Amino acid sequence: MVKKVVILGAGFGGAYTAMHLEKYLKKTKEPFEISIVNRENYFVFQPMLAEIVGGSLGIVDTINPIRKLLPKTKLYVREVDSIDIENKKVILAPKFSHKTTDLSFDHLVLGLGTVTDFRGTAGLHEHALPFKNLADSIAIRNQVIDVLEAAASEQNATLKNKLLTFVVGGGGFSGTEVVAEVNDLVHKLAKEYHEIDHNQIRVILVHSKNRLMDREMPESLGRYAEKLLKRRGVEFRFGAHLKSATPEEAVLDTGEHIPTKTVISTVPSSPNPLIEMLPLKLEKGKIVADAGMQAAGRDNIWAIGDCALIPNLEGGGNCPPTAQFAIREAKILAHNIAASFSGWKKKEFRFKALGMMGALGHQSAVAELFGKFKFSGLLAWVLWRMIYWIKLPGMSRKIKVALTWMLDTMIPIEAVQIKTATSQGIAQLHFETGEIIFHEGDVGDYLYIIVNGEVEVYQEKEGKKHVIAKLGKGEYFGEMALLNQRSRLATVQCFSPVDVLALRKSDFGILISNFSKLKEDFQQTEKTRSRQIG
Amino acid sequence: MVKKVVILGAGFGGAYTAMHLEKYLKKTKEPFEISIVNRENYFVFQPMLAEIVGGSLGIVDTINPIRKLLPKTKLYVREVDSIDIENKKVILAPKFSHKTTDLSFDHLVLGLGTVTDFRGTAGLHEHALPFKNLADSIAIRNQVIDVLEAAASEQNATLKNKLLTFVVGGGGFSGTEVVAEVNDLVHKLAKEYHEIDHNQIRVILVHSKNRLMDREMPESLGRYAEKLLKRRGVEFRFGAHLKSATPEEAVLDTGEHIPTKTVISTVPSSPNPLIEMLPLKLEKGKIVADAGMQAAGRDNIWAIGDCALIPNLEGGGNCPPTAQFAIREAKILAHNIAASFSGWKKKEFRFKALGMMGALGHQSAVAELFGKFKFSGLLAWVLWRMIYWIKLPGMSRKIKVALTWMLDTMIPIEAVQIKTATSQGIAQLHFETGEIIFHEGDVGDYLYIIVNGEVEVYQEKEGKKHVIAKLGKGEYFGEMALLNQRSRLATVQCFSPVDVLALRKSDFGILISNFSKLKEDFQQTEKTRSRQIG
Repeated sequence: MVKKVVILGAGFGGAYTAMHLEKYLKKTKEPFEISIVNRENYFVFQPMLAEIVGGSLGIVDTINPIRKLLPKTKLYVREVDSIDIENKKVILAPKFSHKTTDLSFDHLVLGLGTVTDFRGTAGLHEHALPFKNLADSIAIRNQVIDVLEAAASEQNATLKNKLLTFVVGGGGFSGTEVVAEVNDLVHKLAKEYHEIDHNQIRVILVHSKNRLMDREMPESLGRYAEKLLKRRGVEFRFGAHLKSATPEEAVLDTGEHIPTKTVISTVPSSPNPLIEMLPLKLEKGKIVADAGMQAAGRDNIWAIGDCALIPNLEGGGNCPPTAQFAIREAKILAHNIAASFSGWKKKEFRFKALGMMGALGHQSAVAELFGKFKFSGLLAWVLWRMIYWIKLPGMSRKIKVALTWMLDTMIPIEAVQIKTATSQGIAQLHFETGEIIFHEGDVGDYLYIIVNGEVEVYQEKEGKKHVIAKLGKGEYFGEMALLNQRSRLATVQCFSPVDVLALRKSDFGILISNFSKLKEDFQQTEKTRSRQIG
Repeated sequence: MVKKVVILGAGFGGAYTAMHLEKYLKKTKEPFEISIVNRENYFVFQPMLAEIVGGSLGIVDTINPIRKLLPKTKLYVREVDSIDIENKKVILAPKFSHKTTDLSFDHLVLGLGTVTDFRGTAGLHEHALPFKNLADSIAIRNQVIDVLEAAASEQNATLKNKLLTFVVGGGGFSGTEVVAEVNDLVHKLAKEYHEIDHNQIRVILVHSKNRLMDREMPESLGRYAEKLLKRRGVEFRFGAHLKSATPEEAVLDTGEHIPTKTVISTVPSSPNPLIEMLPLKLEKGKIVADAGMQAAGRDNIWAIGDCALIPNLEGGGNCPPTAQFAIREAKILAHNIAASFSGWKKKEFRFKALGMMGALGHQSAVAELFGKFKFSGLLAWVLWRMIYWIKLPGMSRKIKVALTWMLDTMIPIEAVQIKTATSQGIAQLHFETGEIIFHEGDVGDYLYIIVNGEVEVYQEKEGKKHVIAKLGKGEYFGEMALLNQRSRLATVQCFSPVDVLALRKSDFGILISNFSKLKEDFQQTEKTRSRQIG
């Protein structure tokens, strides 16, 4: 029987495990085949993601089709529905049908990484942009262009300031790289907007510690990055957390309110929920594995990369969740799986980190090599590009990236957006106490349903506030303007932190015209309320 | 007073009018300023859109930022809410706020083109991909990759065939170009999927006339294109219309049912709905204008391009809706507006078409020049690339496209998808009589609400069909599997053509947990039905 190795996730851990395993095919005593399951059909070179935000790299420059990278591995571009360890199978979610697909395995490699998790901070899920994968990079870039376009033709000074303020949460590696790229991008693009003054632009980084990259870099390089970004106009809020985000502002736990339309959060990453449910030994949501990457007590379950807790035999503690480690772990893991098919001796993972690098945009970076040598500025940046270019898998990829980098010096970046899909039908929104959801006279574009909190509905007559209603959980508002095609007849203000569902006018129309009970309900409410407003 | 020229739409007509108008700034007796309103902040070079589907061009290669192209024009990246001709203002839809913006004008140029309109053919809106703008090109490409990925790991032969069948509706210019590019793309990419046999791939063009490009090209070239595409494996259905599309098939008015997951329609394009409401003289939804492009009876309203009906003084009839004409119209239109500020004599539009070209993918094309010279194959393709490359506005654009074309010969295209947003919460689906919406045992992933038509709910016991219920307009089904997290307990089959709304499991969850009335309603129905199923 041909043995089956199934790998979940094609990040650095999963993809490189498959790459090394392919070399063992036909060399083991028992024959085996490799399958990999991934949401996308490409491998993303994570360290270059921030450059996509800034536009130094084209969108497809950093991604490798998995089929090219892993010619002997069977690829499933599917979501994982669940993992059944006892019965040795993975259940794939339906696609183009309503049926799941079972994938049986003899050995399972879990390389599922972490997921963005905004739970715990109000409004982040609704209003913050995550920075984790390729789609996030593109979304951040689109948002920056969107607000610049809107700011260029905005007459209202308050709204214009909001549009030109950018808040990034988290001052680790990715937060620092993103704030550097966003800051460069905004200032570079703003040159083409005569209506935007550079002094109106604010880019603010919020970090809980008192300096940048405190876990990843020595203090001197953290301070260097801070000084450099300050010189380029970035503001810092150290010792502060994002407390909440709304459509109008970012709120810090220091009490500061920053009016903005753009909040990017790099902070929260959680274990993959698929892992939480497994009958494996977990610690802080990660799979506890030995130095051979075998999950505790299971000889056919393996864990690698950010979702695994692997002892760091060289450095002490556990292996850090970096590409550098995942790539090396993969080599040992592939050997160990092959070993189990041939009775070879298994190996333990031992690796000493070579160093750390962080790009700061605009031809500068910071780097620390072998725990001794520190670099910064242009030299570190050249080093950064060289090392990652060498690491980039695939020759055609290397050529494209090199060409784009060359062109970059000749052709300036352009504010062009790639939008490919419409936004969701039902949006969730978070507001803080005192914020206004809509004003009397506004366009009636959404219906709102209160999920949590309380709002006050009022009209202003001769400068005096006439409260019409207080509404709470489960109640809705905004239906009058939609039903009657008029503008808003009253103002709605939050009495407490409020979560609402917002249904677009068009979707509301679809629901109401098809759901007869709903329609009656709405019409009844509307009649009652019309009388109140008079 | 500075006069205000407002241009709506930055297609070939609108963008080139602004380009020419910029040259008249400071040269007219009365000073004037130019504004342009467009949904995107870039100008798309339409003739190269099909190449994006095929991947011969990178995504951003063909698009030009409007601000670069029109440095002296004020750009509004907004949707137009309405046009108030009597009060000389355009009302822009809200963006980042709930307020509309008024844009007043002295002269208004309507260059709004046409819109995709799927009304009239059942299921096209829901299940066909349009081919009109950049987002459409990207969506078509993504769909092709999506179905190939699914087909590669599909065991069910019926579903695999559906996934590998592609239907294109319309055999005019764009239909022919798209079918050529899709066919090339599918076959090129399929080489990388060991699991897909080229013989399983079907690409079918449906056209109402008896030959390709009947309105645009002489018969000989139409036949040439047909022969060439046939040789590459494309099938043709001449004299047939798409009658409807469902998630499972394309239905032709000849009675043929083609099982497929991919329907692309290039046929229906309608006048922009904004124009339908204007107090202007319209014919077939287009604005009737004179040879000076002035709307009938209005000396400050101008119409250009596909939304205008302009007499063709050279060729007779009206000007055809092509880029070639729009570009030339723009020059005269710009002169005429400048003329009205200076008392100059206005000009009439006179232009004789130079010829027509259509790309057929894979280094071939057809072209007819000056009504006499016909070209086909490689020569026509070289001509096509040369002429459009010269026409491509902006030097940096020219360099990028040239580079991509060069690279194209060295680096093969790759099956990489760019997905940037999640799909909509509420989907509309169309099914034909006899089709099955879901089977007993399927995963319970959606709730369905019937908008039109009737379905039958049944279980199969010992090979016999037990009908549980017949449901009609306004009724819903599928809620049981969602509420109880089980798989489907019954099969639902269409008794007539059926339109349904499908709510994703997650969105249903949001609605139900917040809309208490809805929840009661669902639970009540569920209780009743559970008893019926037993």
